[in-house]
Amino acid sequence: MTQSNAIATTPKPPYYAVIFTSLRTEGDNGYAATADRMVEIAQTMPGFLGVESARDGLGITVCYWDSLAAIAAWKAQAEHQEAQRRGKTEWYASYRTRIAKVERDDNTHA
Amino acid sequence: MTQSNAIATTPKPPYYAVIFTSLRTEGDNGYAATADRMVEIAQTMPGFLGVESARDGLGITVCYWDSLAAIAAWKAQAEHQEAQRRGKTEWYASYRTRIAKVERDDNTHA
Repeated sequence: MTQSNAIATTPKPPYYAVIFTSLRTEGDNGYAATADRMVEIAQTMPGFLGVESARDGLGITVCYWDSLAAIAAWKAQAEHQEAQRRGKTEWYASYRTRIAKVERDDNTHA
Repeated sequence: MTQSNAIATTPKPPYYAVIFTSLRTEGDNGYAATADRMVEIAQTMPGFLGVESARDGLGITVCYWDSLAAIAAWKAQAEHQEAQRRGKTEWYASYRTRIAKVERDDNTHA
């Protein structure tokens, strides 16, 4: 299984990044289990390249995809749609989703 | 002062994101003070748009800029050069820097 708390091994650019930044509401309310499930499903989707995630107060999840079509398909996935709905109404006090084209991958040190 | 633990208020795309993902070595070794200082200097640089940062094991810092020229100038800034050198030799077990063009900013909920 892909680990979201490791540095993602992505291919040579170009590829796409979805940068999702969020602040949570109080309490879990089923959030953690759904977050794990979303990573599980995302990695079965065509065009998935990797995911990186961290939270301390602010949460940042960066998910990598090979095309905008792959991102659109993931956004429309049924369980993910339901998670987005619950995110909006229950889990997030605020959030922002940015879609970016990775043009360079510099200074890798591993 | 710009807070790196809040969602950045960025302008309408397009603009650029530097996605810096890292795993730390053991101990602080002057890291925290330098990290704070780098945010302080970055926000005085031309073209700086905002920064978001989180770490739990994996660290993710996303810094937003108005152009590739602004990113190059920040990379070349003297104190930042020294911090990059110490990052490579002392602070990071591994890291990856991705440069991406933000094309869309979706579903903002605040």
